[in-house]
Amino acid sequence: MKFMIRAARETDCVDIHRMIMELAVYEKMADQVKISHEELQRDGFGLNPFYQCLIAEVPKELKSEEGHTIVGYVLYFYSYSTWKGRSIYMEDLYVMPEFRGKGVGKALLASVAQVCVDQQCVRLQFSVLDWNKPSLGFYLSKGAEDLTVDEGWHVLRFHGTALKMLADEAP
Amino acid sequence: MKFMIRAARETDCVDIHRMIMELAVYEKMADQVKISHEELQRDGFGLNPFYQCLIAEVPKELKSEEGHTIVGYVLYFYSYSTWKGRSIYMEDLYVMPEFRGKGVGKALLASVAQVCVDQQCVRLQFSVLDWNKPSLGFYLSKGAEDLTVDEGWHVLRFHGTALKMLADEAP
Repeated sequence: MKFMIRAARETDCVDIHRMIMELAVYEKMADQVKISHEELQRDGFGLNPFYQCLIAEVPKELKSEEGHTIVGYVLYFYSYSTWKGRSIYMEDLYVMPEFRGKGVGKALLASVAQVCVDQQCVRLQFSVLDWNKPSLGFYLSKGAEDLTVDEGWHVLRFHGTALKMLADEAP
Repeated sequence: MKFMIRAARETDCVDIHRMIMELAVYEKMADQVKISHEELQRDGFGLNPFYQCLIAEVPKELKSEEGHTIVGYVLYFYSYSTWKGRSIYMEDLYVMPEFRGKGVGKALLASVAQVCVDQQCVRLQFSVLDWNKPSLGFYLSKGAEDLTVDEGWHVLRFHGTALKMLADEAP
């Protein structure tokens, strides 16, 4: 299938937002999405962007049933390991269901890996839900390590009231 | 105990590097540390810093047995949630053993939470090893959620040969 991977533009945020919602529905957590496409524009395309994004685009003749030509995205940001240095964290990788199995996901993932190598980032890190066996299988088959299984790392988070109460204790 | 929390300066990187090593020894992974204080200087204090760092400093009269006055640090970077927006990822939080139990760790954690609130970041995320019960207990008592237990999130990573092979597949 013909498609191209390119850097997202500000005008792509409506499509990115649509796909963020689709991915959250798949992950059974659609009620958790509180972001708007305006926030995505502000946070990704200002002077100090909070994230980077690549999108997969098909020619018009291959558009989706609903008329979309932007059919996948990968959203990532720069992170840092105090053991190894510069890294990239991949927040989302998504391909619309009707375009799966055609190499789009692999091309998006490989493109982020290429950014890693180009920017001297030594790690590409991300999170996967344990019941999402197709994704887990895909990443492990490509050589990813599951650090939760291998080393016992758990993901923790403060947010909402707990975060505010913590901030109130600052000296 | 008298101490202050302040933003790290480039000249603090020798101390930060020393404490990164101490933390890795505690985490039983000292052999994984490949970073130098020069890399910490380059990556944290250039035009587009890869990380931010706060340190805890005691007055000279309270210096450690080996003569150190910088006795703790918290190292973090900005991240992004496609569900909630701006976030902070806390890579390391460390206090030297002889200065523990005196409020230094709590003050460092609270100071990062304060940065979150000031910068309109809605989440403070981090990782903890499952056998590190003192740290897990401390964070959970402060209201942190364990997303690996509650939602099934696993941490995955590509690095080394797997990362390079992936990049070679980029279109």
